[in-house]
Amino acid sequence: MIKAGIIGATGYTGLELVKTLSQHPGARIEFVTSETYAGHELSDVFASGPDLPLIAFGSSDVSAIDVAFICLPHSAAAPIVVETLGAGTRVVDLSADFRLLDAAIYARWYGVEHPAPHLLSKSVYGLTEFARDELPGARIVANPGCYPTSVLLALQPVLAASAIAVGATVIVDSKAGVSGAGRSPRQDLHFVEVAENCSPYKIGRAHRHLPEMEQVMAWWSDDPPDLVFSPHLLPTSRGILSTVYVPLVDGWTESRVRDIYAEAYSDEPFVRTLPAGHLASLAHVANTNCCCIGLSFTDQMLIVTSALDNLVKGAAGQAVQNMNVMFGLVETSGLV
Amino acid sequence: MIKAGIIGATGYTGLELVKTLSQHPGARIEFVTSETYAGHELSDVFASGPDLPLIAFGSSDVSAIDVAFICLPHSAAAPIVVETLGAGTRVVDLSADFRLLDAAIYARWYGVEHPAPHLLSKSVYGLTEFARDELPGARIVANPGCYPTSVLLALQPVLAASAIAVGATVIVDSKAGVSGAGRSPRQDLHFVEVAENCSPYKIGRAHRHLPEMEQVMAWWSDDPPDLVFSPHLLPTSRGILSTVYVPLVDGWTESRVRDIYAEAYSDEPFVRTLPAGHLASLAHVANTNCCCIGLSFTDQMLIVTSALDNLVKGAAGQAVQNMNVMFGLVETSGLV
Amino acid sequence: MIKAGIIGATGYTGLELVKTLSQHPGARIEFVTSETYAGHELSDVFASGPDLPLIAFGSSDVSAIDVAFICLPHSAAAPIVVETLGAGTRVVDLSADFRLLDAAIYARWYGVEHPAPHLLSKSVYGLTEFARDELPGARIVANPGCYPTSVLLALQPVLAASAIAVGATVIVDSKAGVSGAGRSPRQDLHFVEVAENCSPYKIGRAHRHLPEMEQVMAWWSDDPPDLVFSPHLLPTSRGILSTVYVPLVDGWTESRVRDIYAEAYSDEPFVRTLPAGHLASLAHVANTNCCCIGLSFTDQMLIVTSALDNLVKGAAGQAVQNMNVMFGLVETSGLV
Amino acid sequence: MIKAGIIGATGYTGLELVKTLSQHPGARIEFVTSETYAGHELSDVFASGPDLPLIAFGSSDVSAIDVAFICLPHSAAAPIVVETLGAGTRVVDLSADFRLLDAAIYARWYGVEHPAPHLLSKSVYGLTEFARDELPGARIVANPGCYPTSVLLALQPVLAASAIAVGATVIVDSKAGVSGAGRSPRQDLHFVEVAENCSPYKIGRAHRHLPEMEQVMAWWSDDPPDLVFSPHLLPTSRGILSTVYVPLVDGWTESRVRDIYAEAYSDEPFVRTLPAGHLASLAHVANTNCCCIGLSFTDQMLIVTSALDNLVKGAAGQAVQNMNVMFGLVETSGLV
Repeated sequence: MIKAGIIGATGYTGLELVKTLSQHPGARIEFVTSETYAGHELSDVFASGPDLPLIAFGSSDVSAIDVAFICLPHSAAAPIVVETLGAGTRVVDLSADFRLLDAAIYARWYGVEHPAPHLLSKSVYGLTEFARDELPGARIVANPGCYPTSVLLALQPVLAASAIAVGATVIVDSKAGVSGAGRSPRQDLHFVEVAENCSPYKIGRAHRHLPEMEQVMAWWSDDPPDLVFSPHLLPTSRGILSTVYVPLVDGWTESRVRDIYAEAYSDEPFVRTLPAGHLASLAHVANTNCCCIGLSFTDQMLIVTSALDNLVKGAAGQAVQNMNVMFGLVETSGLV
Repeated sequence: MIKAGIIGATGYTGLELVKTLSQHPGARIEFVTSETYAGHELSDVFASGPDLPLIAFGSSDVSAIDVAFICLPHSAAAPIVVETLGAGTRVVDLSADFRLLDAAIYARWYGVEHPAPHLLSKSVYGLTEFARDELPGARIVANPGCYPTSVLLALQPVLAASAIAVGATVIVDSKAGVSGAGRSPRQDLHFVEVAENCSPYKIGRAHRHLPEMEQVMAWWSDDPPDLVFSPHLLPTSRGILSTVYVPLVDGWTESRVRDIYAEAYSDEPFVRTLPAGHLASLAHVANTNCCCIGLSFTDQMLIVTSALDNLVKGAAGQAVQNMNVMFGLVETSGLV
Repeated sequence: MIKAGIIGATGYTGLELVKTLSQHPGARIEFVTSETYAGHELSDVFASGPDLPLIAFGSSDVSAIDVAFICLPHSAAAPIVVETLGAGTRVVDLSADFRLLDAAIYARWYGVEHPAPHLLSKSVYGLTEFARDELPGARIVANPGCYPTSVLLALQPVLAASAIAVGATVIVDSKAGVSGAGRSPRQDLHFVEVAENCSPYKIGRAHRHLPEMEQVMAWWSDDPPDLVFSPHLLPTSRGILSTVYVPLVDGWTESRVRDIYAEAYSDEPFVRTLPAGHLASLAHVANTNCCCIGLSFTDQMLIVTSALDNLVKGAAGQAVQNMNVMFGLVETSGLV
Repeated sequence: MIKAGIIGATGYTGLELVKTLSQHPGARIEFVTSETYAGHELSDVFASGPDLPLIAFGSSDVSAIDVAFICLPHSAAAPIVVETLGAGTRVVDLSADFRLLDAAIYARWYGVEHPAPHLLSKSVYGLTEFARDELPGARIVANPGCYPTSVLLALQPVLAASAIAVGATVIVDSKAGVSGAGRSPRQDLHFVEVAENCSPYKIGRAHRHLPEMEQVMAWWSDDPPDLVFSPHLLPTSRGILSTVYVPLVDGWTESRVRDIYAEAYSDEPFVRTLPAGHLASLAHVANTNCCCIGLSFTDQMLIVTSALDNLVKGAAGQAVQNMNVMFGLVETSGLV
């Protein structure tokens, strides 16, 4: 049994991890931490939380576990990662701290110097489907952002095949549920502000997940397209739906495009490409670790609809999927 | 034109008042205040707010208006009421400060000494349908609580007719939308906590609106029943539905009960008694000043379903209805 | 491995059963049926459905399975139950057909003669917590209604202890999500009609679950209280919250009442009694097989808040819990 | 007083028209029709409907009114329009029948021959802001579709100024509430299917509102851009948010673009351009006749966020706005 610790268990991602790992046949939770709620039970924090004692990180013994899941805000995560690695324990970091491998880009987008730049070269970007070779040896896995997961899985086949028109702009219009914004009370997350509303935010080239997507796209393509990314807040608790507009190179017919998606994903347990005529929706993926992809076409454009559950494939589920590969367990273990 | 000021305009009730008074043919808004947002426009605070400058109360001239609507928390309201009255201006107070006429009961339920007990005797409890004689001369009108409005209108006919079984307990099970809990960010009002949830709170005899109901019931009945009151939070923005269980005295048949409700309300512009077989729901009353009442019967029990919009008949709408009667305007003015 | 068939798999309960049994370590699905969608896959019917072929009941071989879960409307279920039993296969019937053991009461409430009255004496009422002795030998298990499950678990300890005041009326005010009303399109279940609404229906003594509750209450008490039962439709997909008002016999203090609930439920895996000061809410139980119970008190009244997920403990989950006990599996198998 | 009839009053648009016209100081409703519910009151159909008798169209006297609002499905509307015009009465048609001025395009997109092609040349496309010269003399006003209203108001200034890059594709990603899909029960509009979901439909170049937008864009530009239009269903009752991606010609800076929107709309009562840094959301426009427009910029792209209430500015509100201009009333009458 893999022994796991969850650092920062009182957010929505932490709770999802607790629930997933509690049912995992090959792993068990050794401890869960919270600075704010240390001394309480998780059931005091969440109506649906189990009776699991919360301890301060300082009281935990990270050397006694095999893997630590870090569910902390950016900048707060990195020092904990450093300490955990120092204790000889592997890390799946769900914060943004080890996703951007260039400390200068991190500084520009997050407004602070990177807390541990020397470790960036050791980080594996854990988009599991494209990181299987590196995960078994990884000490730090940077769990991808929820938006990037939905967008990168949508784009990888056409990027890798150079099917996107050169010089084109790919437009990503994403719609996301409220849990992605965190659990802390905020005026704009008040029920009355969200219900019966739909509101765009940080649209164009303003959201921190943009450079993360661009970094990975550049790994897959020598000449990646420009990216415009517009997130919108939905009156749902969970889910991300990204509608991705991709101008195609001449000659990339629907059947040819479908072929490369089939090739990429037909054996994937957690990526489901829908048959022609079907579009992805949040209902396809709620409470699952699946990313569901629909392919639509106009004369010269591919429109990918890509849906996932932001707390599962967009966070806790993919983190466990990464753990499974890191430790040689069956990849779907605890996730189906 | 009646000149009105709104003191504390940046809550949901304040905004509703602004919208109602903006369309009122016989009144106009002179100023709106906010301590937090003074210097901004109301449109900075609410996406749907008009361009109306917010000023601090201290910068307003309450002597220049005919009526001040006080939309402040309890205890904060009373000193402002004192100052406003001192300037010769009439007050509709939407807080709880002048609803309970006994300062000792106020102290017990609100946990503070009443800030202005000498004024309690001057307060008129503004359940408009039963306060028309007193409103024209009133200097202070205590606008009723949202729950009490739904419950008292539901009970008045059977209380006044002594149709409730002596010694009986009336059970009020209320369901309410989130705006009734205010606009300040709170963990339990976060969208994710409320959506797909329904949660009871302060049930039994624990909610501050209980003594308010009991006070008024005692005005209408020499031998009022015991009251149990259980509110529940709904995943809606607005609305209160109270399901009220009333054990009847022998001999009070359905038709006899229907007669007294017809007598009480058939001429009322804002109380609508539904025909037999119909139950009140939030859909009957959303965005209206109407309290909608359904009457159902078992062998010895009347079940009243009573619905209203907590921000309209439960707050801003009834406040304007009271203003209309205070100043001799047509009672429905600005409200239909 | 227990071999299971699901008869009528294209409703919300059927889908929930498919998902639960798919993850069950001791059972597997042999076939799922649908008359309307025979020839299609379950994934054609539900975005989140697996690729499972739907066949007509007539094409299925019920003799080849160990247990059939019947998810059909009342009256349609009974003939299928007869046929299934005839093939030597045990049945968990999720319809109402075998819950009421008196055919005359069935006829009165359902408006049709009972289709198979000779089998009523063989039916075991599958409120698992109180049917463990009978389930292992049962050929027909009548899975309880969703409302009765929430109410009966709330009341059993005080009923069995004769703690309810003699001659009293117990009032049950229930709030339920939309999936309980089925999946067929209906005007009143249209999104726009339900959102921002809360509507009572069949209140008092009009709902078909009332005689079901009364039947079971009479098993537990020689002198059961009168019952008033008022369901309300919530703008949620799932969940039932019952607020149950119970007049107590003198001498039944809070601690004494808490003791009997602790005695009844402290070892139950799927009934959770909350500590003092806590009230049950839908958030406690969403997507779990748990019934969560809160106990509140006024001077002479116990108020029980009882929450469950209508599709899990209120239907598919309890059905699987019953199957586990029927076949000697671990009772929590596949459910945690 | 303008005398109005509403033909087909039992959909959401019909109800909205009834509510708007009931409060209109310069118009009154003479009759409302319904084939299905003739003989009932509107309050029988809608909980919030007034007591207004529904009659069959055949029993109405269209010659006795000044204007008929036609709220019928496409193809059903045209014959009624013919009959109404024949009686000498002017028409505001809220169906799609007189929006597309080319009968061949209508036939291609709606799958039926146009029922009254000889009248197409008489139809005025009622996007009020750009039809004020023609409305006073119009006999038939085709009230624009909800999506086209949101998109055309978003695009008109840049189209008219030739600011859109030649050969570019404008991408419109729209999100809409459920009332836009009508009131008839449908599986995909069932509460449980919509809640916690967001689903694209008819994306790319498949929705019937696409040719309507293209027709109008060609009036405003000799060289209109290609259009891709992707609607999505939101879990809200009302509202449309269109996020419109517009590649700009070199030299069209943010300030220059803002200038042309200011010029176009600063005097418009029902188009509100937000200041820099603000994005339009549904909360800006719920229950108002306003179209709210936000302007965002990347290096070479304008992103317009355009929000309106589909039942008001997208249907009933704009219909009344058109009536006001047709009959020489104050344009905002009954709408603020």
